[in-house]
Amino acid sequence: MAESIRMLSKNTVKFIKSLHQKKFRNQEQRFFVEGEKSVLEVLNSNFKVEILICTDEFLSKYGKQLNHLEIQIITATQKQLEGLGQYQSNDSALAVVHMKPNSAFDFPEGNFVIGLDDVRDPGNLGTIIRIADWYGIKNLVFSSQTADFYNPKVIQSSMGSFTRVNFFYADLDKVFQKWNVPIYGAFLDGENVHEMKRISQGVILMGNESNGISEDLGNLVTDKVTIPGFGQAESLNVAIATAILCDNFKRLTIV
Amino acid sequence: MAESIRMLSKNTVKFIKSLHQKKFRNQEQRFFVEGEKSVLEVLNSNFKVEILICTDEFLSKYGKQLNHLEIQIITATQKQLEGLGQYQSNDSALAVVHMKPNSAFDFPEGNFVIGLDDVRDPGNLGTIIRIADWYGIKNLVFSSQTADFYNPKVIQSSMGSFTRVNFFYADLDKVFQKWNVPIYGAFLDGENVHEMKRISQGVILMGNESNGISEDLGNLVTDKVTIPGFGQAESLNVAIATAILCDNFKRLTIV
Repeated sequence: MAESIRMLSKNTVKFIKSLHQKKFRNQEQRFFVEGEKSVLEVLNSNFKVEILICTDEFLSKYGKQLNHLEIQIITATQKQLEGLGQYQSNDSALAVVHMKPNSAFDFPEGNFVIGLDDVRDPGNLGTIIRIADWYGIKNLVFSSQTADFYNPKVIQSSMGSFTRVNFFYADLDKVFQKWNVPIYGAFLDGENVHEMKRISQGVILMGNESNGISEDLGNLVTDKVTIPGFGQAESLNVAIATAILCDNFKRLTIV
Repeated sequence: MAESIRMLSKNTVKFIKSLHQKKFRNQEQRFFVEGEKSVLEVLNSNFKVEILICTDEFLSKYGKQLNHLEIQIITATQKQLEGLGQYQSNDSALAVVHMKPNSAFDFPEGNFVIGLDDVRDPGNLGTIIRIADWYGIKNLVFSSQTADFYNPKVIQSSMGSFTRVNFFYADLDKVFQKWNVPIYGAFLDGENVHEMKRISQGVILMGNESNGISEDLGNLVTDKVTIPGFGQAESLNVAIATAILCDNFKRLTIV
């Protein structure tokens, strides 16, 4: 290993506990990832892992693949791991990882971008990241009031997909005006997505859990789209609606 | 009102707290519903409400519509309500409601039924009920190991849709053999749902969060179906997958 293996210190415990809060994540520009599957995914991604805290079992199972990485490795018991993160059960590992800079990307020609206007629930954001990854829509853009990408619940519910997407936070109106591509917004009075014809690219814009898409952004929507309902439920959860739109848009791109 | 308005007693508090547990719900054949929207929906449904515990504000706003109902009404403060249920915030009402008998229904000809094989997470079950209601698929059948319909988290995440569906728990293999209709099962190696042709009726069978559809039931699946993936996510959450299949099946029914 690049550095010697250490024991868990009080200072490290304190540091990781501080990363539960957005304020300290931003200050330190670090976040944490828990559980065997997600930790392995982040180790194999283009995120830079700084500290790996793991059980002896995890180390003996995966130690060889860590040889070439400059990571500070700390061994800990299952009980210690569970005291650090938010998982009720964690018998493998927790990684402290560098945040990426919040850099805008250009619109990926011929593809789709998911735009989120104040989606507040971390579970919804993480689920949407997983859906985006499933549908190969690797670029997302978030309003500043959208949940924090590095929130532990977002990382958890993305099931490793957080390592495979590009994203940035911005004033969506400025971004959309610059990109000048179709903005498909989910509304209750738009075109039935089952009746739409072939489409090729654009932004799939989803709104806040309670209030939908804000009025300002609504004015920039070029195509209102609607998921047809056949029963009496008043609405669908925003992650469910995102999945259904992505599924239809991918079908309409390929047909 | 049919009965005089009472104050909240210690015995009632104890009774409602017991209903957080499946064992006591089954013993008492009662469950509870929280929050203004859901309580109003259950009052207007064919469920029989036994006790309504609500704030003075709720009573003055909706008291008139309660006149014809045989309900025991108890007034309580917001703090008392929050101590009874699982909502962090509840400034309106909580209702104690009779469970319905677990009665099998015949297959609804020309329609779809959602079958769940050991879907264990209450949030997933509630979300699936909401999706079913959105798509007008009002009949669901659950394996005995599926989450309890009357779990407070199921009721909460169904967003009132729990009042509008029919369901029963059973040995799914026996039910499917009796019904003798197409069983569409979600697998990773089935027919691409985007390439399917017109369909008319059947069971949409979804499996357990970790293990998918059990081998025994898999043998009864007549049509394996797959949601096409375009990225690297290994799977989709079961509620997300249910939504996407319902959306495609409804599109294929109408085309």
